[in-house]
Amino acid sequence: MNHLAVLGPGLLGGSLALAVRARAPQCRITVWARREVAVPFCDFFSTDLAAVVRGADTIVLCVPIGAMPALAEQLVPLIEPNALVTDVGSVKAPVVEKLAPLFKRFVGSHPMAGSEQAGLAAARADLFERSVALLTPHADADLAAVEEAAALWRLVGCGRVESLSPAEHDDAIGLVSHLPHLLAAALVDFIFKDNPQAAKLCGNGLRDTTRVASGPPAMWTEILAANRVPVGEKLTAFIASLQEISRNLATGNDSELMHFLTHAKALRDRHIR
Amino acid sequence: MNHLAVLGPGLLGGSLALAVRARAPQCRITVWARREVAVPFCDFFSTDLAAVVRGADTIVLCVPIGAMPALAEQLVPLIEPNALVTDVGSVKAPVVEKLAPLFKRFVGSHPMAGSEQAGLAAARADLFERSVALLTPHADADLAAVEEAAALWRLVGCGRVESLSPAEHDDAIGLVSHLPHLLAAALVDFIFKDNPQAAKLCGNGLRDTTRVASGPPAMWTEILAANRVPVGEKLTAFIASLQEISRNLATGNDSELMHFLTHAKALRDRHIR
Repeated sequence: MNHLAVLGPGLLGGSLALAVRARAPQCRITVWARREVAVPFCDFFSTDLAAVVRGADTIVLCVPIGAMPALAEQLVPLIEPNALVTDVGSVKAPVVEKLAPLFKRFVGSHPMAGSEQAGLAAARADLFERSVALLTPHADADLAAVEEAAALWRLVGCGRVESLSPAEHDDAIGLVSHLPHLLAAALVDFIFKDNPQAAKLCGNGLRDTTRVASGPPAMWTEILAANRVPVGEKLTAFIASLQEISRNLATGNDSELMHFLTHAKALRDRHIR
Repeated sequence: MNHLAVLGPGLLGGSLALAVRARAPQCRITVWARREVAVPFCDFFSTDLAAVVRGADTIVLCVPIGAMPALAEQLVPLIEPNALVTDVGSVKAPVVEKLAPLFKRFVGSHPMAGSEQAGLAAARADLFERSVALLTPHADADLAAVEEAAALWRLVGCGRVESLSPAEHDDAIGLVSHLPHLLAAALVDFIFKDNPQAAKLCGNGLRDTTRVASGPPAMWTEILAANRVPVGEKLTAFIASLQEISRNLATGNDSELMHFLTHAKALRDRHIR
């Protein structure tokens, strides 16, 4: 990679530029945003898309998923035909479906990094360290492009790169990311709606349990809407599992409660580090 | 406080002893446990309860809530009559009901500190720093004893001490601690039960959201069982709120989804630091 163009210097785009600057200082970095912003750590910033992507061998779309199709269409006549084009969207099937046909070398990406903070001010060179990057190559994706995208995420610190289809991705991420986000927001809403004094009683547990609920609402609305069907199915099934727990609690089935908590601890200790 | 007796050197008891050692080095610290354990940071350790509490002006029960009534009855003939007796149980009404009548100067406490780790090995002198300690004085509690208990928790670093009745405590903590614990465990169970490969896809969000589910299952079964009615009521109401979110998601009511996420972020940013 000799020239990286980052489109959209938010938390992910800004962190990507910072990480490449730190780890591949010889790489030219150009940044585009819809509006003028101060991006101190790139070689060139402009709101002129053509000027930013000219000569870039790697182009990463870091804009909200709803803005990707229109931006991609603008890109088509401007980029080097052999450039690798990827993105950082949290939902992949609708993005890949629209973007893959437009480019010779497109690979969908989803670096599983981020925080409840948003925007360039929260960007960090180490954001991707030890995180997992998911690649979602479509059926006729260029294999060398897939390898280049994997190399990009490894370069910026991702500890692991996994490949899965866009639909598999959306189903799995609906489970491990979108459902937990909805639950965290629902829990905050439920706790504080009628009990503002509950804030006086919060421990670290609740702070961590609900952290993601401080994420940007517009972005998350877009993500949940784009992944509506898988997330809806998981939420319905999760409600059923809560109803079973509720029954065991009500009937005093404490051996089942103990079994459930023991199993959950074992699963978490095994699967989440 | 000249002589603190800690009964049960687990995470909380061990951290209490360490914090007092660090902040009030002149205070004698004696520790009792049911079995022999190495407690390097106290003046005297024994499995002989009488030897540990003899001369103590402050006695803190740090055993599981189910073990408290029997331990308290053993204590009665052994302690100095004017000693402050308190505990660290996470459920207060059943504990206070049994313990308050036994002692002249009893005050229920619940320091809202801890972690998903358990046991003496996880004890830390700074565990209580910036946490809130809840006191649950019963109707005829000795006011000077309440003040002494507050001073103990401030000494070990609690940033705030709040008083509320045992029943109010159990209701509020059912909401801000016990319900979130159940949800975290339910989420882990739901995610990994049929999808062990989901572990490959987890980000920081899920790690934080589910952290408390790694807590000790026996302790949490006891807590949830002791606070069965409030927790059950909150879980039922929370399920109803999830069903409403599920309907909005299914019907494509994205403006309501956006409103919900925006409200949740505002509540969390305001109430949880």
